[in-house]
Amino acid sequence: MSELRQNLISRDWVIIATERAKRPEEFVKHTRPAPLPDFSEKCPFCPGHEDKTPPETFRIGDKRSWQVRVVYNKFAALTPEGERVRKINGIYRSMTGVGIHEVIIEHPRHNALTGLMTEPEVTNIIRAYKDRYLSAQKDKRIESITIFKNHGVSAGTSLEHTHSQLIATPIVPPQVRSRTEQAVNYFDDTGECIFCHTLKGELEAKERIILETEHFAAFIPYAALSPFHIWIFPRRHMSSFVEINEAEIKDFAINLKATLAKLYYGLDNPDFNYSVRSIPVDEKGSDYFHWYISLIPRVSQTAGFELGSGMFVNVALPEASAKFLREVKV
Amino acid sequence: MSELRQNLISRDWVIIATERAKRPEEFVKHTRPAPLPDFSEKCPFCPGHEDKTPPETFRIGDKRSWQVRVVYNKFAALTPEGERVRKINGIYRSMTGVGIHEVIIEHPRHNALTGLMTEPEVTNIIRAYKDRYLSAQKDKRIESITIFKNHGVSAGTSLEHTHSQLIATPIVPPQVRSRTEQAVNYFDDTGECIFCHTLKGELEAKERIILETEHFAAFIPYAALSPFHIWIFPRRHMSSFVEINEAEIKDFAINLKATLAKLYYGLDNPDFNYSVRSIPVDEKGSDYFHWYISLIPRVSQTAGFELGSGMFVNVALPEASAKFLREVKV
Repeated sequence: MSELRQNLISRDWVIIATERAKRPEEFVKHTRPAPLPDFSEKCPFCPGHEDKTPPETFRIGDKRSWQVRVVYNKFAALTPEGERVRKINGIYRSMTGVGIHEVIIEHPRHNALTGLMTEPEVTNIIRAYKDRYLSAQKDKRIESITIFKNHGVSAGTSLEHTHSQLIATPIVPPQVRSRTEQAVNYFDDTGECIFCHTLKGELEAKERIILETEHFAAFIPYAALSPFHIWIFPRRHMSSFVEINEAEIKDFAINLKATLAKLYYGLDNPDFNYSVRSIPVDEKGSDYFHWYISLIPRVSQTAGFELGSGMFVNVALPEASAKFLREVKV
Repeated sequence: MSELRQNLISRDWVIIATERAKRPEEFVKHTRPAPLPDFSEKCPFCPGHEDKTPPETFRIGDKRSWQVRVVYNKFAALTPEGERVRKINGIYRSMTGVGIHEVIIEHPRHNALTGLMTEPEVTNIIRAYKDRYLSAQKDKRIESITIFKNHGVSAGTSLEHTHSQLIATPIVPPQVRSRTEQAVNYFDDTGECIFCHTLKGELEAKERIILETEHFAAFIPYAALSPFHIWIFPRRHMSSFVEINEAEIKDFAINLKATLAKLYYGLDNPDFNYSVRSIPVDEKGSDYFHWYISLIPRVSQTAGFELGSGMFVNVALPEASAKFLREVKV
């Protein structure tokens, strides 16, 4: 019989379809796309093409010999200029599309992959995340900041040169709001951060842990929504990503790189998305929320049931997925 | 500048990316998969292979000359036997995977498409939906019922023979719960069903309407989450799908068939999902909820921002999408 599991943090229910569960090996792709070149003449993110991008907002390295560059998104979903104006016309509610949309170019090499970079290189990416997060939260119009990465066509990438993005919105997305509400309720009931409590439980249970480093732990959530859905939590309680310190940045780079390398070697370079989930800007310093990374390899397809109910069917057992990734050597 | 729009029913915010919006014509696929045969020797849903499926629960027509058949799902996410038992072990909450998972085989012909069937054929599919919904809601363990359809590989279909599915769950999915909570709040504030109010507004505004029939209206929501995201609402207030009467079933078939035909001819047979969103079983007859169909053509890709924030970026203007589909002749 299948098992329904509830994610206490999101309150989502997932059906762990044990009857038709696949073995971890069955998710290996076995078809790799053609390898990318080191450099592409047409790529606006490759070195020497710096004048092909919108203005730079941050850089590590020299103007012509950089390691990380951050630029405005040429096809920005939100625009930096303008007032935050809300219009309410009966049931029609709208707001001006002001906000920040930046692209973090993670590496000069066209075909670089985060999981295969050196640790100092990944550290520089995280430093760029922090700088841009700090900068965005100074803007009084901004309520919430999402940093994310799309890797591969099925994960929604349109440019193949390795990059992440930051979108800072003038509203708190309802999913962020409901997560924080759940966390407040749990804190009010127990006096404890639900994320700290979850992490403690997972570190004791061990069976869903993928990788522990000094300041971070990567694991498969008990009620993972899809196969190899991964959470990376900082051990120290921090509600906002921006509170990460230099020692933690370095360790986060080690953990993120190794976790992505495990996906690369274990599942044959799957497409994936990750996002940094952080508290709304104006609530930072809270005792009840805890930032984390949610990482979703695109190894299965959501369908009508998920779209219609908001429930998920996961055809992989979280404990088996975790064991598989734990054992991948990197 | 982009515009943020809020869906009053779900409270979701979407970024309507007008700056990088595509014209409706840009979503046309232009690559059709190889046509399917009328009959497939390997297909368990084709006539003559009735012994290849799990037991039948409903049929329209004769045993060997049927129009619609409903069978248990061979790879059921939930199983019909067993008790609903909830286990709570600290943060780990689970439940036995009891429930109902059926497959509605919509037509004997292997390559039939709902949008191209006759109206009486589609009427029979809706009759089957109602029969199975009625049957599932008699089970005391069932809290919520989702009927859905996956069309095409990118929409999660594993079998190509045209079919829909019904999953009846022993819990109310949190997304269904939050939708009903929003509706209750609106009803308490205004004394009105938020769905009736939305439909009235759309019928007056006209610009997002795709198709009006006697008892139903198909339209693009003001805050559509993705290009060509469609809602079909019954005009009469009904909280549960099971309240649909025979005249409405016939008209719903006309509306659904024509809307799907508009997608077929207008966008070149896109993959899609639809689901029937209905009130939880034990709350039927309520004044505040209103069942409807949510239909999502798979013409764009969700990525890290959507997964991380729960907000969507829609690169199509709802009014332009509606005009485009309104004008497709079927």
